[in-house]
Amino acid sequence: MRTRVTDMFGIELPIFAFSHCRDVVAAVSRAGGMGVLGALYFTPDELETELAWIDDHVDGRPYGVDVVMPASYAGADFPADELVGRLQTMIPEGHRSFVENLLTRHGVPELAADADPGRVLLGWTDATARPQVEVALRHPIALLANALGPPPADVVKLAHDHGVKVAALASTPRHALKQVEVGVDVVVAQGTEAGGHTGEISTMVLIPQVVDAVDVPVLAAGGIGNGRQMAAGMALGAEGVWTGSLWLTVEEADTPEMARRRILQATSRDTVRSRSWTGKPARLLRNEWTEAWESQESPGTLPMPLQFMLVSDALRRIGRSEAAELATFPAGQIIGIMNQVRSAKDVVFGLVEEYGDALERLERITAD
Amino acid sequence: MRTRVTDMFGIELPIFAFSHCRDVVAAVSRAGGMGVLGALYFTPDELETELAWIDDHVDGRPYGVDVVMPASYAGADFPADELVGRLQTMIPEGHRSFVENLLTRHGVPELAADADPGRVLLGWTDATARPQVEVALRHPIALLANALGPPPADVVKLAHDHGVKVAALASTPRHALKQVEVGVDVVVAQGTEAGGHTGEISTMVLIPQVVDAVDVPVLAAGGIGNGRQMAAGMALGAEGVWTGSLWLTVEEADTPEMARRRILQATSRDTVRSRSWTGKPARLLRNEWTEAWESQESPGTLPMPLQFMLVSDALRRIGRSEAAELATFPAGQIIGIMNQVRSAKDVVFGLVEEYGDALERLERITAD
Repeated sequence: MRTRVTDMFGIELPIFAFSHCRDVVAAVSRAGGMGVLGALYFTPDELETELAWIDDHVDGRPYGVDVVMPASYAGADFPADELVGRLQTMIPEGHRSFVENLLTRHGVPELAADADPGRVLLGWTDATARPQVEVALRHPIALLANALGPPPADVVKLAHDHGVKVAALASTPRHALKQVEVGVDVVVAQGTEAGGHTGEISTMVLIPQVVDAVDVPVLAAGGIGNGRQMAAGMALGAEGVWTGSLWLTVEEADTPEMARRRILQATSRDTVRSRSWTGKPARLLRNEWTEAWESQESPGTLPMPLQFMLVSDALRRIGRSEAAELATFPAGQIIGIMNQVRSAKDVVFGLVEEYGDALERLERITAD
Repeated sequence: MRTRVTDMFGIELPIFAFSHCRDVVAAVSRAGGMGVLGALYFTPDELETELAWIDDHVDGRPYGVDVVMPASYAGADFPADELVGRLQTMIPEGHRSFVENLLTRHGVPELAADADPGRVLLGWTDATARPQVEVALRHPIALLANALGPPPADVVKLAHDHGVKVAALASTPRHALKQVEVGVDVVVAQGTEAGGHTGEISTMVLIPQVVDAVDVPVLAAGGIGNGRQMAAGMALGAEGVWTGSLWLTVEEADTPEMARRRILQATSRDTVRSRSWTGKPARLLRNEWTEAWESQESPGTLPMPLQFMLVSDALRRIGRSEAAELATFPAGQIIGIMNQVRSAKDVVFGLVEEYGDALERLERITAD
């Protein structure tokens, strides 16, 4: 397969795999696509370790790193060294007790005393994502991707100075235009069916509009879980596909067993677009956590990054408990078609094979 | 183009056009697709008139009729002659005053004294849709389609006895299976981006699941407004496409001028899935009407068919007033790409031409 995207990165297949797991990233790049490591959960030191590992396991194939530099968030003008402290004071007591009561009702134990208090912000802000960018650019990455808006212009320049292409996720044609204005090389147009932060417009409706709006290549994201969906994304005008949820259940993934089981059993109706994770709308597994935030008792969600600061410890506690009914995580609607565990390589090859079948079928329809 | 659907109906193009306007229905069938008249708003006598007109203007090409026989609704067990009266008593006074206050705030005048009180139920129930089916089957229709669930088994049999194929709209694979169980010949799998009553799963995610679940041919609905989207729907495994919003702005459409202008200007973010029209979730133009029902003051919506009975007069009053900010109607997300008025024939030919271009582009991508 050949598009501007395969030429740009020297890859065989225009398949991009977003994952927080280094094994998945390396496996997809080795299979001819491009793995993209989500840096969000890593401290700069941890990220250094992950990328060094990928460098050793990717056989010289290109890979990317994804950071989150939101265009807007509470406290964006606070000095970095006061950021966490000042943000903590902005979380109302009523919200803290709502979360505590919810966990108590479900019998979720406290965190152990060794819990790391410094992780509550993760890479959700400019201040915490920039050190990740610096680490990433010390490695031979081919792509720096940004979620939640156009990356800052100086970051785009820095990446380009390092010979690194820049991608950004867009959920409207207007977002895409803003991203191209700051110099983004690839737009990832992401439909509402995608897992994680996502807009309202479906992939089917969004992709042609973004393709028509910008001159740079567009990747189709949201709802891409098999080769027919990949063919559909390309038919809409995309020059490649960006996938995420698809990799949560592969053999290589370090997905917690409880989450993996839940995904394998879920239908496409078991997700919901909710602000209960970060304060911005994100598609999550629908369960008692997301429903509690929609209930009459809910105090409403807080703006980014306050909501994640409020709930991060809670989510860690839930993850370590038996309260599976509260364990939510970002998941796209394709979890309804993810019913088996395969290797990342098999998933890549399966996409390509089914893509070919879909194209042959289309050719037969018009040949008759 | 040739699929099981073109063979089934003897049509050249697997393009189905749902419209409440007879001119559109006839024009699409004459252009090689299949027009499907929405019967909902017509009394049996009016429907007779519309279908007689279509018979005279369709040049012998096949066309269809769409009715609404919901699988569940309030009052489904009431005798037909008591239905309206008993349902009226179920509408709380607080809901009536909420609507009245909303209209007063926006300066919407009362209806004239000649307003027809018998239309409040339209064809929203089994009792009011059956007479429409009887009228339809007296005409040479090729297809009877049902929205909102599997049609009653006796209606499927009646249609088949008349040599008429039956289609039904599904928004989950489970719905599709139920429809095939009662004998439906074609499943219209409709994604959440569609206008009107619609589920939560996007077209991209839904179509492959429905195609894999049933043996009958599947039409892709929701988000199909251009040839790239048609190609995507077919790549997902559909054997044809079902379109609705697309026909609201064609030259032949009898769409009120205010609504037509609003659609031509809208973006894909200007729709919302709301219960404020009928009590079941339907994608509507987002405006002050839909927002009022989401507001703190909202009494909440009523179950079908009570909500439509509650609001039908209000919507008629708004339509005759200057209160454009309250005039909502069913509209899919593709209204964001509907920016010009063309003839129905040009729209059909445009779909086919762009479909061909999309397929050629896919072939070039794999040829290199």
